Amino acid sequence: MHTGNLLFMTGQLSQWNGERRFIGKLGREFGVEEGQAAARLCALNLIAHARDAAGGDLDRVARIVRIAGFVNSTPDFVQQSQVVNGASDLFVDVFGDAGRHTRMAVGVAALPYDVAVEVEAVLEVP
Amino acid sequence: MHTGNLLFMTGQLSQWNGERRFIGKLGREFGVEEGQAAARLCALNLIAHARDAAGGDLDRVARIVRIAGFVNSTPDFVQQSQVVNGASDLFVDVFGDAGRHTRMAVGVAALPYDVAVEVEAVLEVP
Amino acid sequence: MHTGNLLFMTGQLSQWNGERRFIGKLGREFGVEEGQAAARLCALNLIAHARDAAGGDLDRVARIVRIAGFVNSTPDFVQQSQVVNGASDLFVDVFGDAGRHTRMAVGVAALPYDVAVEVEAVLEVP
Repeated sequence: MHTGNLLFMTGQLSQWNGERRFIGKLGREFGVEEGQAAARLCALNLIAHARDAAGGDLDRVARIVRIAGFVNSTPDFVQQSQVVNGASDLFVDVFGDAGRHTRMAVGVAALPYDVAVEVEAVLEVP
Repeated sequence: MHTGNLLFMTGQLSQWNGERRFIGKLGREFGVEEGQAAARLCALNLIAHARDAAGGDLDRVARIVRIAGFVNSTPDFVQQSQVVNGASDLFVDVFGDAGRHTRMAVGVAALPYDVAVEVEAVLEVP
Repeated sequence: MHTGNLLFMTGQLSQWNGERRFIGKLGREFGVEEGQAAARLCALNLIAHARDAAGGDLDRVARIVRIAGFVNSTPDFVQQSQVVNGASDLFVDVFGDAGRHTRMAVGVAALPYDVAVEVEAVLEVP
């Protein structure tokens, strides 16, 4: 949803081509590396949707402003920051300095369809 | 809180006329349909507060930009998307196309006063 | 991250001088008062970062717009609102009326490094 220069994006689950991936919780089914791969998938979906919202032209995305990473966690898993790095690092890889962002990472009790990670984002798209 | 064209709204709990409703967790006390009713209550509260913030005139609300639904969930309840549809559908019923929004839905370990659902929103109010 | 008049701030954990404080969950290791102290620490970190982002001049912060408080909770702890008051009250103490804000408070299953509270914020900084 574009409002002013901001693009608020729907939270993306760890899925690809319509197939949900990484079904389960960090701290039980998955460890940090798989969580990072799940977060990267969320970021890839955000980038794909951002390109569509920018009329097919990723260059119109001025900056990644803020991401929030929600990690499907057992109560004793505490490496949410490292997991969400999987998304953060991809944004910097793709957008360079414009991919640096403020962010939040928390561990949630459950996520839709039991996916491992959900990431939402706010972008600057003039 | 109005800033520029955006109205950031406080997260609303499932309550009505000051009385909290739907006390308990999805996946234990409640199923999807009750969760949707709880989410609808949150949306009704958001709409009531939006009308107040817009000087009593809902027509001044240009668009619903983004909602975030937090569903009080057991670790194995994974239908948060369907629950939050209870809020999303009401926004579309009330505002038509202007009620369509980006959104996030997650399952949280606990909510204030043990209510079933909390929804926050960002609106465009010029 | 500054965009237009808005400053989106990274979620701050309950830590001070690089040392994490209040390690554990509300409802198990900690009660409401300790949670409020943890939330206050998060707010202090947000204020310190806001001052840096505003070129060292807190007077350039026009308003606190929105905060979100994530409380590391057992499934039966339901006083998240009271805990997050620890942050809200500090913003009002420091900024007066400009410190009043919209907000959200939820209980999450886990937080990075097992800290008790994480708070993120959106500020108005022209």
